[in-house]
Amino acid sequence: MPDVEGFWAVVPAGGAGTRLWPLSRAGRPKFLLDLTGSGRTLLQATVDRLVPLTSDRVVVVTGAAHAEAVRGQLPDLDGARILAEPAPRDSMAAIGLAAAVVERTDPDAVIGSFAADHVIPEVGAFHAAVREAVEVAREGHLVTLGVEPTHPATGFGYIRAGDPLAGFATALHAVEFVEKPDAERAAAYLASGEFRWNAGMFVVRAGVLLDLLGRWHPDLAEGLRAIAADPSRLDDLWPGLEKIAIDHAVAEPAADAGRVVVVPAPFGWDDVGDFASLSSLLPHGDGPVTVVGDAADVTSVDTEGLVVAAGGRRVAVVGLDDVVVVDTPDAVLVTTRARAQDVKKVVDALKASGRTDLT
Amino acid sequence: MPDVEGFWAVVPAGGAGTRLWPLSRAGRPKFLLDLTGSGRTLLQATVDRLVPLTSDRVVVVTGAAHAEAVRGQLPDLDGARILAEPAPRDSMAAIGLAAAVVERTDPDAVIGSFAADHVIPEVGAFHAAVREAVEVAREGHLVTLGVEPTHPATGFGYIRAGDPLAGFATALHAVEFVEKPDAERAAAYLASGEFRWNAGMFVVRAGVLLDLLGRWHPDLAEGLRAIAADPSRLDDLWPGLEKIAIDHAVAEPAADAGRVVVVPAPFGWDDVGDFASLSSLLPHGDGPVTVVGDAADVTSVDTEGLVVAAGGRRVAVVGLDDVVVVDTPDAVLVTTRARAQDVKKVVDALKASGRTDLT
Repeated sequence: MPDVEGFWAVVPAGGAGTRLWPLSRAGRPKFLLDLTGSGRTLLQATVDRLVPLTSDRVVVVTGAAHAEAVRGQLPDLDGARILAEPAPRDSMAAIGLAAAVVERTDPDAVIGSFAADHVIPEVGAFHAAVREAVEVAREGHLVTLGVEPTHPATGFGYIRAGDPLAGFATALHAVEFVEKPDAERAAAYLASGEFRWNAGMFVVRAGVLLDLLGRWHPDLAEGLRAIAADPSRLDDLWPGLEKIAIDHAVAEPAADAGRVVVVPAPFGWDDVGDFASLSSLLPHGDGPVTVVGDAADVTSVDTEGLVVAAGGRRVAVVGLDDVVVVDTPDAVLVTTRARAQDVKKVVDALKASGRTDLT
Repeated sequence: MPDVEGFWAVVPAGGAGTRLWPLSRAGRPKFLLDLTGSGRTLLQATVDRLVPLTSDRVVVVTGAAHAEAVRGQLPDLDGARILAEPAPRDSMAAIGLAAAVVERTDPDAVIGSFAADHVIPEVGAFHAAVREAVEVAREGHLVTLGVEPTHPATGFGYIRAGDPLAGFATALHAVEFVEKPDAERAAAYLASGEFRWNAGMFVVRAGVLLDLLGRWHPDLAEGLRAIAADPSRLDDLWPGLEKIAIDHAVAEPAADAGRVVVVPAPFGWDDVGDFASLSSLLPHGDGPVTVVGDAADVTSVDTEGLVVAAGGRRVAVVGLDDVVVVDTPDAVLVTTRARAQDVKKVVDALKASGRTDLT
């Protein structure tokens, strides 16, 4: 199939992934890592997945500290397509800057934003959904890909979908975005069948996104367009931009205004938020222990769980029925899949004790 | 108090301690390690504990491969007092050789054998028991120190004690030695109050030990005395010596012959057989995690257990209620105190896969 004319991918590459410590660090964030042992980092896999739709129309937005590493991992991407943020100003500024830059090149362009650190194994289904989303977006809608929930997750926001959108195969009107629910509400959302996970995959005409932003945050929209018009003003204007997430800045008010459409995302999706999530993504080998790295480095006896052998050392586990061991050259983590979310507390404790060299 | 005239300590320094892998290795056995973080290795602590009784009358018997390391750890000991076995030939040959060497120096000497890798925190009570044992041994008895059982252990042999021995404060006739029992029998032994652990602490005149040995294993007794008479014959005679434990060779038949006396050992004793045992020996610090090494290297969240930080790296544990983590430069072990005995299986697996470099 040919690529999708006039469609640009925007890849925000940010976030440290503190729940994946000690693999991920502030200086070596999740998106730069080959967590699944596929031979490609999450960033590279994200771009690989998009190129059949966009050809070379991919823009990556990342922190200045990581721009060099991103360039190194994406040698085929024109360096001008890698936008370096002087400092983090949340997702609206990052995606909005890319939208403004794309808008100047192609005023009718449709952009799609896809985080650099998510995993989508079923590429064919992903492509089909994005192709429909682009067609819907050309009509002026803000489209979000809605992931079918597989469990009552409390770590994601949800979108409530309504009636079908006339003229399209699967698209639905979006009723509202809702924030991360508690466990009880998450279970109710799952049971209702009306709710989908908001995976942050927005597809929209660049000009529409900036015009919608202009309705509710005019200074931010104007600042982003000013930077795109004169990139030399980036360092000057960036610090004054409003720090706000794209969901709050545009998606939620646009849904209230009836401007948002959901295209169902009938494919597996994972944000690799912690080691339990990583474990579930990996193919299970011969034994009850899933190994990332060289399985020959691991000796396990009566154990189930995940071992990441990234320290070049022998890792031996004996008699644990749910364990996560992550071995790296300067730190080793031991936890369980059940407690994987609390790995963040280790990073917090290290920061509190001044050991930012390890975070 | 003065030392005990004519009393010699024999310290067999052997055994790899595979249940303490990866701290202990074939080339770095348990007795050469400072497992408890006291600043002294188990071997050094054993000799420290004996010197007040023996002054310089200490003989260490160890494998040829470890003789250099033993000399390095015991710089105050005359090198001639460190006997190097050309190959392991079990405890009777090791202790018997020392007995034969001591017998030539002092025909009336009483020897006491004390393994180099056991822990006895209460030195005063130990000294008092040994002093009584030496007095009993001077009468021609084979004396064993019987440790009061604290739990129905299945990993030790037991001694059944009978009537008091006339003329001594605490000594009792020994009725029999029994092999390591199963759990049911161990519980019965504990309940009966008649049984004590055989900790391998034998006190006996050197000549009596060799004469008793001569009754049941004349070739072995003769070979040991021949080596003591002419040490140049060691390499020649050693390989032909019978390989047998002192319990089977002498202690059990001597008990049957009514020649064995038990002196109660009213002090804590531990053979540091595994990480559960090590954990129980260590002082508990501020938190629920006991740390060997630098506590500043360990970050724990909602965890109970033992962390050995010997790898110079950060060790982080999250959400485990019984965990043992042992970090060393080339290997990390994760297990539980409950499964500590099975660490041996890791060593077996490494050997089976040809990784003897790690064992």
